[in-house]
Amino acid sequence: MLTLEVCRSLDQCDPLRECRRRFSLPDGLIYLDGNSLGALPAAAAGMLHDTVEEEWGQGLISSWNDAGWFDLPVALGDAIGELIGAGSGQTVVCDSVSTNLFKAVHAALQLRPDRHTVVAEGNNFPTDLYIIEGVKSSSKRELVPRLTDGTLRGLDECLDQSVAVVVLSQVNFQTGAMLDLERVTRACHDVGAVVVWDLCHSAGVIPIALDDCLVDFAVGCTYKFLNSGPGAPAYIYVADRHLLTVSQPLSGWWGHVDPFAFELRYRPNSGIRRYLCGTQPVLSMQAVHAGIGTYCGVDMDQVREKSIALGEMFVNLMGQECQQFDWTLASPDNSRLRGSQVSFRCKHGYAMIQALIDRGVVGDYREPGIMRFGFSPLYVRYVDIWEAVQAIRACFQEKVWLQEEYLRRKTVT
Amino acid sequence: MLTLEVCRSLDQCDPLRECRRRFSLPDGLIYLDGNSLGALPAAAAGMLHDTVEEEWGQGLISSWNDAGWFDLPVALGDAIGELIGAGSGQTVVCDSVSTNLFKAVHAALQLRPDRHTVVAEGNNFPTDLYIIEGVKSSSKRELVPRLTDGTLRGLDECLDQSVAVVVLSQVNFQTGAMLDLERVTRACHDVGAVVVWDLCHSAGVIPIALDDCLVDFAVGCTYKFLNSGPGAPAYIYVADRHLLTVSQPLSGWWGHVDPFAFELRYRPNSGIRRYLCGTQPVLSMQAVHAGIGTYCGVDMDQVREKSIALGEMFVNLMGQECQQFDWTLASPDNSRLRGSQVSFRCKHGYAMIQALIDRGVVGDYREPGIMRFGFSPLYVRYVDIWEAVQAIRACFQEKVWLQEEYLRRKTVT
Repeated sequence: MLTLEVCRSLDQCDPLRECRRRFSLPDGLIYLDGNSLGALPAAAAGMLHDTVEEEWGQGLISSWNDAGWFDLPVALGDAIGELIGAGSGQTVVCDSVSTNLFKAVHAALQLRPDRHTVVAEGNNFPTDLYIIEGVKSSSKRELVPRLTDGTLRGLDECLDQSVAVVVLSQVNFQTGAMLDLERVTRACHDVGAVVVWDLCHSAGVIPIALDDCLVDFAVGCTYKFLNSGPGAPAYIYVADRHLLTVSQPLSGWWGHVDPFAFELRYRPNSGIRRYLCGTQPVLSMQAVHAGIGTYCGVDMDQVREKSIALGEMFVNLMGQECQQFDWTLASPDNSRLRGSQVSFRCKHGYAMIQALIDRGVVGDYREPGIMRFGFSPLYVRYVDIWEAVQAIRACFQEKVWLQEEYLRRKTVT
Repeated sequence: MLTLEVCRSLDQCDPLRECRRRFSLPDGLIYLDGNSLGALPAAAAGMLHDTVEEEWGQGLISSWNDAGWFDLPVALGDAIGELIGAGSGQTVVCDSVSTNLFKAVHAALQLRPDRHTVVAEGNNFPTDLYIIEGVKSSSKRELVPRLTDGTLRGLDECLDQSVAVVVLSQVNFQTGAMLDLERVTRACHDVGAVVVWDLCHSAGVIPIALDDCLVDFAVGCTYKFLNSGPGAPAYIYVADRHLLTVSQPLSGWWGHVDPFAFELRYRPNSGIRRYLCGTQPVLSMQAVHAGIGTYCGVDMDQVREKSIALGEMFVNLMGQECQQFDWTLASPDNSRLRGSQVSFRCKHGYAMIQALIDRGVVGDYREPGIMRFGFSPLYVRYVDIWEAVQAIRACFQEKVWLQEEYLRRKTVT
């Protein structure tokens, strides 16, 4: 029998318990949506203030050199590299995940000029699929998309010698189901395919070893578990061995080998900077500094263990406290096969999530019928899980889906 | 004979003199580089503080709806639209100029499926040329770039029935030379070509009438004269009549007709949102609010008149105070044919600019051998021009190019 007391003692023994102080969290709020927008790092406001008042206001144009603005994409890229097992010089922070995916898939295709098939999960986050359509429309080759169901078996059936590129998410945005990055990468390489990983829902909560797993390309966002602020710039990883071999079509001046030479012809930078395009949003970039800073000195294995424990507790408590109500687990049963979230199918999921938010428990809703709860191990406590499940029980008991106010749809769900 | 007294009295009569208070400028600095990075709006720090502490820190995920984050690209786009003569629903703020140019050229090409030539100025800002290379590499068509010299005559000679798209800057980044937007657009249309204007160096200092001139596409940045901060998101304008006709290949989820339906297939939004790709950097977007706010209630004809007067004064003072030294005007003689900058060719330009910065006069250097001074009429005073030319004279007299410290090249020049 799990109790509030058990949760409290787990929090007391939590090796990551001090990390919560690195964040500025609203009083009394139970925030289980760090997989959508990470909480505000306590250091962010001061850093942004300095960037605005000192670097922009006083330093003005000189801050491109003096405050290191020009090097932010690579400096931040290397810092993220440490969290995803990427040696320096292979990761750069810039643009959005979608834009970086466009670059990555175009570049990956160049590595397999004689192949035509692009494999993707049908239940991947839609932008990954939409971008493959965009690449198809802007490729000189006739590309053939092929959808898999995201299971290892489904993937295996999709892989053959016609496959040029495979685009996969390590952790599924809806269900939290996690693929074995090493094994899947090897399976892709076994048929000669190039793999592009989307790390949006895994970076910062799972130990990742891109270099060791011989991953080719990866992209990810910084505004979820990396706590870098709304719409913060994304990143792209390109393995060293591919850096000089291929390029990408968003050939803006920031990717040029010498942007301030103002040459007539594009010559790509010899390093990861060739994946840059235009000028980057410095204010939002500086928040990435604060976001990554929340991981300073943190042991990623401890993060993973706590993430698993939080998820298991959530599922077990749902069984204990809400057994009689109408929901099913949408995530894998085995917690080792999940990212840092659990999802439940629930007929009244939308209204339930709205009602929970009203009660100070923030998760989110994803079509169709998915209630999603994410756990950022740096600031989510075991007692938060206890309180969240109590609130879910109350919402079921009160049949909140009969209340008009919880049915009104908002733009962003 | 121009004197400091004349400058002072011009400042006293300046109808825009109160606008300077809208900025937070370093004491004693003469900032003539607003054409590279605009000065800090006084309102920006407070707005950013609220966005960080309240919207992100307290509102968290709910701010996508409650703080209007989701609508920022179109709300800011419409606000910029007012400055460039674009009716609402045709301008969206997002991504970088380079990325938006990639979208615009790809979309423009779709309007002329049977043509193969893309015309561009050879002396345009290089990223415009680099992006045309990128479009060429990612187009199903074999494209033929054709370079013009940027004069009206050169352009006329380039235009024929094979031209699909023409990419031009309204104001040249180096020389400040300005093209007649209306006349050139008409000339392009006369041969059936589609025109894409780059407004980076004209928006905010020149009255622009995109709709009235029947412009097809335009892009521009917000961090120069629009004062929106380092690397602030750019914008893209697409004329109403083309909105439903064509699309662009960066088909990320923010451009989808219903991003939160998580549909399998991409269906572009029926409005300007189809030019969005991924999630936008909200902190940097909020600074665009502050930047555009500096133009609140400002008469753009007054801005243009002051801009011309500042430029004429600079050129006249150079003749009066620096006649004996080694420089020539790199900008058009006729101030009506210039944007809001003057440029000088000077053998020792790089060292001169570094020495001027040391003396509190900030212009910038552009290869090859160009000293560039920009005038933001909202905060630059006539006395600033006087002081700047006095400092230039002193640098010539002191032969600063013989001093080692002014020869060391920085990354960003």
